[in-house]
Amino acid sequence: MRARGIHHLGVAVADLEEALATYLELFGGELEHRDTVAEQGVEAAAVLIGSGRVELLAPLGDDTPIGRFLAKRGPGMHHVAYEVDDVRAALGELEVAGAELIDREPHLGLFGLQVAFVHPDAIHGVLSEVVSLDELA
Amino acid sequence: MRARGIHHLGVAVADLEEALATYLELFGGELEHRDTVAEQGVEAAAVLIGSGRVELLAPLGDDTPIGRFLAKRGPGMHHVAYEVDDVRAALGELEVAGAELIDREPHLGLFGLQVAFVHPDAIHGVLSEVVSLDELA
Repeated sequence: MRARGIHHLGVAVADLEEALATYLELFGGELEHRDTVAEQGVEAAAVLIGSGRVELLAPLGDDTPIGRFLAKRGPGMHHVAYEVDDVRAALGELEVAGAELIDREPHLGLFGLQVAFVHPDAIHGVLSEVVSLDELA
Repeated sequence: MRARGIHHLGVAVADLEEALATYLELFGGELEHRDTVAEQGVEAAAVLIGSGRVELLAPLGDDTPIGRFLAKRGPGMHHVAYEVDDVRAALGELEVAGAELIDREPHLGLFGLQVAFVHPDAIHGVLSEVVSLDELA
């Protein structure tokens, strides 16, 4: 699989307002998108930092993926997302190369992205995501 | 402070050879630099992934920063580095904006970069680094 680059770094935070203020102020970030996605249990903000992007993820409750992450690990880096041309093709190539897929099919992620997650165990503890900007086929 | 973008994602790994093979194979990475820095207790590889960069960091022993991180947290994301024009100026602006600095002065990091670390506590648990490509003044 050949990734185009790092699409974003996903960061789990307890309070989205505070985190957003921090990233805007400390790093000169610019709010790109913001959304609340009840079915994913998350309130999220995409912040552009120069040519880079940080996705701030706050849980809507304790029994959500980000809520459980915060309870276990505390706030911090949650995942890294690589941009690819075609998420479905990337998943096939990742599986052949020995990755353990969390998502076997692309699904609609935050901000209209087509996404799929890859298990951290085969990537030295890093929860990794592949994303493309295309509409879901 | 205005960052140019994400310079790299620093990942702590137990075995540099294995991790390097994983990143080359799974994500189509390209080895950019590789170095062993005894005084930092680290063996490191910079891997280009498209326009992005992952820095793989393996400890030279248990009693090193990366060794202690691995013992406490296991392998995974360790820090994110933002590229800035001037590390010294960035440190001044970060301090005014309320960040807690680990390094009050730029120092020579891996691969000839000028670097300084910012404490994770004021950045929602994310150990952050500012780097510039310039020589140390």
